[in-house]
Amino acid sequence: MSDVERIPPRSGTAFKVPAGATLTVIDPEGCQVADLLAFSSEDVNEVISSGRTLDYAETIALTTGHVLYSNRSRPMLTIIDDTVGCHDFLLTPCSVDTFLHFYPDKPVHRGCFGNLAEALEPYGVAPDRIPVAFNCFMNVPVDAQTGKLSVLPPVSKPGDRISFQAEMDLVIGLTACSAYASNGGSFRPIDYQIEFLGSDDIPIGAPSNA
Amino acid sequence: MSDVERIPPRSGTAFKVPAGATLTVIDPEGCQVADLLAFSSEDVNEVISSGRTLDYAETIALTTGHVLYSNRSRPMLTIIDDTVGCHDFLLTPCSVDTFLHFYPDKPVHRGCFGNLAEALEPYGVAPDRIPVAFNCFMNVPVDAQTGKLSVLPPVSKPGDRISFQAEMDLVIGLTACSAYASNGGSFRPIDYQIEFLGSDDIPIGAPSNA
Repeated sequence: MSDVERIPPRSGTAFKVPAGATLTVIDPEGCQVADLLAFSSEDVNEVISSGRTLDYAETIALTTGHVLYSNRSRPMLTIIDDTVGCHDFLLTPCSVDTFLHFYPDKPVHRGCFGNLAEALEPYGVAPDRIPVAFNCFMNVPVDAQTGKLSVLPPVSKPGDRISFQAEMDLVIGLTACSAYASNGGSFRPIDYQIEFLGSDDIPIGAPSNA
Repeated sequence: MSDVERIPPRSGTAFKVPAGATLTVIDPEGCQVADLLAFSSEDVNEVISSGRTLDYAETIALTTGHVLYSNRSRPMLTIIDDTVGCHDFLLTPCSVDTFLHFYPDKPVHRGCFGNLAEALEPYGVAPDRIPVAFNCFMNVPVDAQTGKLSVLPPVSKPGDRISFQAEMDLVIGLTACSAYASNGGSFRPIDYQIEFLGSDDIPIGAPSNA
């Protein structure tokens, strides 16, 4: 199992996760969104797809047991644990344009979009290839009568987490989100941890030499 | 104004629409979905984005007055008329994989995805670049309590239509949708018409030589 890595507030990173490994995204202080993107590491033209995923899941409320699909209809990530049960898969990462639109009186920030673009560039992912993200812990209720979307503070508490099993070799982009509304008005870090198959960890229930 | 063009059942097409022109998508027989994609004709890496659009509109119920944005946060199409008021911008075009998933007992069809991929190939759009479509007349209610999506028959009646003003020079992909659930179980054509700026049509209220 890898060490717990920390993404500082309003920043992002990218890293590889091999097929079979588990990626856990942790909200260490609570009320903080993490935008997650996934690309096939064999061909980054294969990318996480909100439209395929929502179509197959037949719900916008994705949680344990749901599969996140690629634009080629292949499983990329399966949600295997989720202590929150409230995430968003409708909206694109916040960006300079988002800040100009929603926060004209506040300093402009490159947002998750800019953070992801920089982090993913070494993997050959161009900014135009950044799609709708799976926004861990983001609280976006939809009014069934009017269709209106609201962006409310996350309900995640300190230490809440969501775990994904990688269904193919992946490049992951992950942020600590930079937008005011998404995070209840302030900005906190995001932690993540990767558990590799065949690591030295002793599986639960396995014989121990201790 | 162009002639009314007909898209036969379960097929698709692509064409250019210049900035300022009006594209009207018509459901001639009623209860038929049309998947619509838009790309900048100057650079097809700029593409219609559900995530940007829903974020800026703050609703999933898009109708007259709403703007459909690109992945670069630029307006692509403004909805200027809409006799239905019920469309979908959550789901990707139906495909071979969609048919295998939802209709395992029925003949597999390449679906809107295959139809769009073929029609857009001459414009330099690769299949992996096909995103969530703006699905004209598609009826996808969301249950606010559970998040569950349903695909119900369209409420569009014969002759119902939606009109868009092009906000940039565009390549449009458009289908008569091939999926059973989207269209109430059978398949009908879709019509469309383009009204160009500076065409020979006499604007309403303009002086006539007749």
